[in-house]
Amino acid sequence: MTILQFTPFSSAVDAAFWQTLAEKKLNEFQLSDQSRSLLGYYTPGHALLDTQGQSVAVAPRLCLPSQAFEKTSTIPANAFQVTGTITNTNTIQDFQKLDRQALFQEAASKLWNCIESGEAIKHPGLLCQFFVLTFADLKKYKFYYWFCFPAPIPQPSQWQLDKPMTPITSEMNSDQIQSLAKEYAKLRSSQGPDSAYFLIKKHTSGNIRVGSLDTWDDFFNRSDEPIVGFADPSGLASPGWPLRPLLALAHHSWGLNTLKVVCYRDPIETSQILVTSLPTDSLYQPKDSKQKDTLPKSVGWERNAQAKLGPRVADLGPLMDPLRLADTSVDLNLKLMRWRVVPDLDLEKIKHTKCLLLGAGTLGCHVARCLLGWGVRHITFVDNGRVSFSNPVRQPLYTFEDCLEGGAPKAEQAAKALKAIQPSIVSKGYSFTIPMPGHPLPAQQLRQDSQALLDLIESHDVVYLLTDSRESRWLPTMLAAKLNKIVINSALGFDTYLVMRHGGRNQAQDQDQEKIGTNLGCYFCNDIVAPTDSLTDRTLDQQCTVTRPGLAAIAGALAVELMVSLTQHKDGVNAPAGKNDVPCLLGIVPHQIRGFLGQFSNMLIVGQAYDRCTACSTKVIEHYDADPLGFLSNVVEDPLYLEQITGLCQMKAESDALLLDDDWTGLEDDF
Amino acid sequence: MTILQFTPFSSAVDAAFWQTLAEKKLNEFQLSDQSRSLLGYYTPGHALLDTQGQSVAVAPRLCLPSQAFEKTSTIPANAFQVTGTITNTNTIQDFQKLDRQALFQEAASKLWNCIESGEAIKHPGLLCQFFVLTFADLKKYKFYYWFCFPAPIPQPSQWQLDKPMTPITSEMNSDQIQSLAKEYAKLRSSQGPDSAYFLIKKHTSGNIRVGSLDTWDDFFNRSDEPIVGFADPSGLASPGWPLRPLLALAHHSWGLNTLKVVCYRDPIETSQILVTSLPTDSLYQPKDSKQKDTLPKSVGWERNAQAKLGPRVADLGPLMDPLRLADTSVDLNLKLMRWRVVPDLDLEKIKHTKCLLLGAGTLGCHVARCLLGWGVRHITFVDNGRVSFSNPVRQPLYTFEDCLEGGAPKAEQAAKALKAIQPSIVSKGYSFTIPMPGHPLPAQQLRQDSQALLDLIESHDVVYLLTDSRESRWLPTMLAAKLNKIVINSALGFDTYLVMRHGGRNQAQDQDQEKIGTNLGCYFCNDIVAPTDSLTDRTLDQQCTVTRPGLAAIAGALAVELMVSLTQHKDGVNAPAGKNDVPCLLGIVPHQIRGFLGQFSNMLIVGQAYDRCTACSTKVIEHYDADPLGFLSNVVEDPLYLEQITGLCQMKAESDALLLDDDWTGLEDDF
Repeated sequence: MTILQFTPFSSAVDAAFWQTLAEKKLNEFQLSDQSRSLLGYYTPGHALLDTQGQSVAVAPRLCLPSQAFEKTSTIPANAFQVTGTITNTNTIQDFQKLDRQALFQEAASKLWNCIESGEAIKHPGLLCQFFVLTFADLKKYKFYYWFCFPAPIPQPSQWQLDKPMTPITSEMNSDQIQSLAKEYAKLRSSQGPDSAYFLIKKHTSGNIRVGSLDTWDDFFNRSDEPIVGFADPSGLASPGWPLRPLLALAHHSWGLNTLKVVCYRDPIETSQILVTSLPTDSLYQPKDSKQKDTLPKSVGWERNAQAKLGPRVADLGPLMDPLRLADTSVDLNLKLMRWRVVPDLDLEKIKHTKCLLLGAGTLGCHVARCLLGWGVRHITFVDNGRVSFSNPVRQPLYTFEDCLEGGAPKAEQAAKALKAIQPSIVSKGYSFTIPMPGHPLPAQQLRQDSQALLDLIESHDVVYLLTDSRESRWLPTMLAAKLNKIVINSALGFDTYLVMRHGGRNQAQDQDQEKIGTNLGCYFCNDIVAPTDSLTDRTLDQQCTVTRPGLAAIAGALAVELMVSLTQHKDGVNAPAGKNDVPCLLGIVPHQIRGFLGQFSNMLIVGQAYDRCTACSTKVIEHYDADPLGFLSNVVEDPLYLEQITGLCQMKAESDALLLDDDWTGLEDDF
Repeated sequence: MTILQFTPFSSAVDAAFWQTLAEKKLNEFQLSDQSRSLLGYYTPGHALLDTQGQSVAVAPRLCLPSQAFEKTSTIPANAFQVTGTITNTNTIQDFQKLDRQALFQEAASKLWNCIESGEAIKHPGLLCQFFVLTFADLKKYKFYYWFCFPAPIPQPSQWQLDKPMTPITSEMNSDQIQSLAKEYAKLRSSQGPDSAYFLIKKHTSGNIRVGSLDTWDDFFNRSDEPIVGFADPSGLASPGWPLRPLLALAHHSWGLNTLKVVCYRDPIETSQILVTSLPTDSLYQPKDSKQKDTLPKSVGWERNAQAKLGPRVADLGPLMDPLRLADTSVDLNLKLMRWRVVPDLDLEKIKHTKCLLLGAGTLGCHVARCLLGWGVRHITFVDNGRVSFSNPVRQPLYTFEDCLEGGAPKAEQAAKALKAIQPSIVSKGYSFTIPMPGHPLPAQQLRQDSQALLDLIESHDVVYLLTDSRESRWLPTMLAAKLNKIVINSALGFDTYLVMRHGGRNQAQDQDQEKIGTNLGCYFCNDIVAPTDSLTDRTLDQQCTVTRPGLAAIAGALAVELMVSLTQHKDGVNAPAGKNDVPCLLGIVPHQIRGFLGQFSNMLIVGQAYDRCTACSTKVIEHYDADPLGFLSNVVEDPLYLEQITGLCQMKAESDALLLDDDWTGLEDDF
C-alpha cells in the first residue's frame, strides 16, 4: 500500500505586498505587533508541458497580493481566496524568539473547531487557512517571513492510496466532463471561496451533478458513489495541500474511511481522480487517559529555500529606488519620535514649513542642517558672498573644493550641498545683497533687490535672520513684520549668542499691552538708534568671526528647535512668552535666549515691542506701504530718516553706550 | 630751452615680500598699523638693444626683496640700497581713507631736513627715499599698495637742459672712462649706499678723480669744472628720479644754478652726460608773507598700471597653493580671537591636541566639525557601522552618495570627509567593535579589538565617548582612567542631553576627598549596576535616534568647547569643578552639563568619583592590570563579574529605578 502524499503550498508574496506592509508599519501599525488578518489566494494547478512534451513541476502557490490587507481583494477570476493572519514583530530578535509552537497550536485548534462545530461544512473556505510571521527591516528593506498552513493529520497511520491518481478522462467521457465543468461553474458563481470544496455524483442519466458540502445528506442516494471534489492548486503527480483538511472533515463529520476524490484542475481535462482510505486503527483525536478529546496532531510549516524548516527572506533593497529608501528612512526616524514620545507631534506641519535663510554662512549652514534633521523639505538661501578658504571648517555645507577659483557663490552652493545630503529636498540659492540703511545704491538695483526679497518672504513661512551685519537685518525684519511671518533671529558674539523670535504683528491690536510677553518685540525694538553702516569701518577682526567655533552650532540648533516648537504651538507667531506662555507639546517657546559659553549657561529674556521701533513699528510700515521705493531710497541714503519718522532723533544721545555692546551685532564668519 | 625730464621709479615688489608681509601681519603686527622701515634697492640702468638694434625702454625699478623688513638685506652686487617705510592698514577702507597728504608731507619734510641739515652731504644715500602704503587681504591673498618717492622741486621754473644728454664717450676717451670706473669702484667699496651720489673731476693729467659729496670744498679747484655723478637707475633718454633730490641739494647747499651731471649707468660705456641749469627766478623755498622758510613743493606718488595716480594691486591668490591658502585663512580666524579677545589663548596647544572619537554617528560628526573649527589637526574615528540612508540628514559628515551599495564604513568615510573640508587635516578611521560587558566574543577577537582600542587611547590626548550604547563606553572609560587621559562624554535623550568630562585618576591620591568637585567621577560612577547588554532587546524605536535633531549639534559643540576650555586650564584633566574651580581664561570647566531642550535651559552638576565604580575605580583597574585578557573575557561573558569585584552585588536591588531612566543611555542615530 502507498501512502497518500500531498504537495505543500509554496508561498508567493508580491513585492508590492512588502511595500504595503512597510507603509502600514510606518503610518498605521507603528510599534504594535498584534496579529492582523490577510486575504491570499491560490489558483487551480495544471500540468505544464515542456518543449519535449514532458509535464513539468508547478508547485502550488499561495499568493499574497498588495491589497492582501484589505477586506476584499481583487484576485484572478479562477482563483480561490484563502484567509490568514500576519504577525509583524518590531525587531529581528522578537522575530526569532516568537513562541511559534503556541501560535501554531492556536491556528490549528481554530481550524479544528471549524470542523468540529460543522462551521466548515457551511463555509468550506475555512478549511484552507494560513498565518505568516514577519519582521520588516525598513532600513535595508529586507523582509523576514515564515508561512504556516496548518492541517490536522490522523494517528497512527496515514491515508493510503487505494487507486492511484489518474486523469479524470479515465472515468468520465467528454460529455460528462463538460457537464461537470458547467455544473461547477454554477456552484462557483453562487458560493465563491466556499466552492473550493464540493460534492460530485454521476446521475443515472449519466449527467454529472455538483453540490455544496452542506447538502451531503440529501445529495447522495444510497446507490450513489460519493465523490468529493476540491480545487487542487497542484499540477503535479500528487494532490495539493487543501485536500488534507478535507479528508479530516470527511472522516470526522461524515465518518468516512474511504473516499473518491476529484482533484479539480484547470483546464478541467487536466483534473485527476483518486481513491484513498484510512486504516480503521487510525484517528484524528486520540482519546487521552482522561477520555477527553484532544486536538489532532497538525502539520504545516513551510520550508525555506534550503528546504529546511525556517524563515525565508525577501531582500527588496536592491529593487528599491535609493532616493525612496532615503526618504523612508528619514521619515522613519522622525515618526519614531511621535510613536514613542510625542504622539501628537505634527510632523506634516514641520515638513511643509517653507524656510527662508538670509545668510548662508556659519549660522546659515548650521540652521539648514538642523532643518534637514527635522524633515523640512523646502529651504531657500540668500547670500551675496562666495565660499572662501576660511569657511569650510566653520560652515558645514562647504568643502575645500568650493573655495577654488575664487570660490563658489554661497547661496547656490549651499542649496547644492543640501541636495547632495537629501536628494529629494527642495532648495534654491539666490545671490543678491539685501538693501541696508546707510548703504546707498542705484535706484534700479534697489528696486530689483527689495522686490526679490519681498517675493521670497511672501512665498515662505519662516524667515531666518543669519546675516553678518545688523543693518542687513532691517529690511527683512520690516517686511516680515508687514506680512506677519515668523522671524527667527540669531547673532553671535565671541562667547555669547542670541537666539530670538520676533513678535507677531497682530498682537498689539488684539492683546492687552500690560501683559508681559504677549506683545513681543523684534531685533530692533530695544534699540534707540536706527541701524546704520556698521560694515565699512570694521577692522580686520570685526570683518570675520571672532567667535568660539561651538557657538554657531549651538545657536543654529536652538534657532531651529525654537521654530519647530513654535509650529506646534496653538498661537504660532503670536505665541506669548514668559509667564503668560502656555507651553506646547515640545515645551516652552521663549522670546529670547541669550547664551554665555564662558559659564556654560543661558538665560531667557522677554522683550516688549516698541512703538518707535525703526523696523517693526506701525509708523515705519505705514511709510513703506505709502511709497515703498521712495521710502527705501530715503532709508538707504540716510538711516537717520528712520529716526525722524519714528521720533527717535531726540534720544540719539543715549545711543552710544548701546552701540558699544557689539556682542549682539551678529558677526558672521565672512572675513 | 627744454625742461629737464626725470624718469620715475617703477616699483618692483618680489612676490616673496608679500608672503613675508602676510606672515608678519599674522604673527607679529597683528592689528597694529604703525609704520615700519624697509630696505629696498635699485640697480644702475642701461640701454637695452632689441633685435633690430634699437634701444628699448627699461623703466628704472625700485625693488623690494623678501628680506626688505630686515635691518640688512642681501642685494645684487651692483645695487644701491634705498631706505623706506611701510604703512599696512587693517581694512581696505582704512587704506582708502589714509591721510595721504599728511604722510607725504611728513616724508617730504624728512627728506628736506636731511638736505638743510647737511646730513645728506655726509650720507647721500638719504637723498633717495620711499614709503609705501599697503592693505593685505589675507583671505584672497590680494595686496593693495601705493609707492611714493618724494622729491623737492623748485618754483616757479624747473631745471632746464643746457646740453642734451649725450653718451659719456663724447666727453671722455676710453682711458678716462676706465679710470672713472676704477676710481668709482673704490668709492663704492668704501661708501656703500652713500656712493649713489659722487663728485667727478678731470685731473690736469687727464685722469679722472672721484670723491664723496662731503669733500666738495676741497675736491674742486677754482679751475675745475665741477661734475656730479649719480647712480642712474634709468636706461632711457632721460635721467632717473634720484637726480631730483641731488639737484635740490646742489642748489641749496652749494648755491649752484648750473651743473654738469654724469648719469652713471652699467656698463659704464652706456653712461650719459648732461648739463642743466635753474633760472635765477626759481627757488626751492619760496619765502612766505612772514618771511619764514616754507617746505619746498615736492612730488613723487607712483602712477598705477592705468598711468593714473592711484594704488596698484598684486593678486597672489592664483599663484598660491590653495592648500596653503586654506591653512592661512583658518589660522587667521583663530588668531583673531587671540588678538582681539583672549591674548593668552594657547592655540598651539589646542591645535596639537590629538582627539580620539569613539563613535562616528550624530555626535561624532558634530564633535569632529567643531574640532575642525578650533583648528585641531589630529582627529581619529572608531565606528563599526556603515552609513545608512537615515544618517546624512543628522550626521553632518555624510551624503546620500555614502549610503549606496550597502553604505560606506562610517569611520573611514568620516575621515575622508574631514580631509575634503580641510585637506591638511590628519584623520584616520578604524572599523571595529569595542568589546562590551555582556557581549561575549571569541578570545582572538577580544584580544585584537581591546589591544586596538588600548593603542589608540595611548596615542591620543583626549577620548570622546560618543557611541550608541552604555556598555560600549565601559572599556574606553576604564582604559582612559588607567592612562589618566582626558575623557569627554556625551549622551542624548529625546530632548535632554548630557555632556561631561571624567575626573582625572590622580585626584583621589593628591587631593582632599572632602572638597566637592576636586575628585570628579566618570560616566559610571553614579551607577550601582554594571553596564550590561542593552542592545539586543532594543525595540525598533530604541535602535535609532529618538532625539530632537538639534540636540546632537548642541551637545557636540558643548563637548568640544568643554575640552578646549580644559586645555587652557592650569590643572588640565585634574581641574576641579564647581565652587572649588578656578576658571580658565575661557571661563569655567564644569563637570557635567545636563540640558533640557523643552525648557531651553541647562544645569551644571558635580559628581564625585565612586570607589566602587565598575569602570574607573582602582579595584577594577587593578584586576585589569593583573591579567588584562582574563579579566576582560570574564567581563564580556558576565557583566555581573564587575559587580562582584567592586562589591556592587548586594545593592543590585536598587538598580531598576535607575535603569528606567533611559534618558541617559546615549541612544545614537543608527537605526
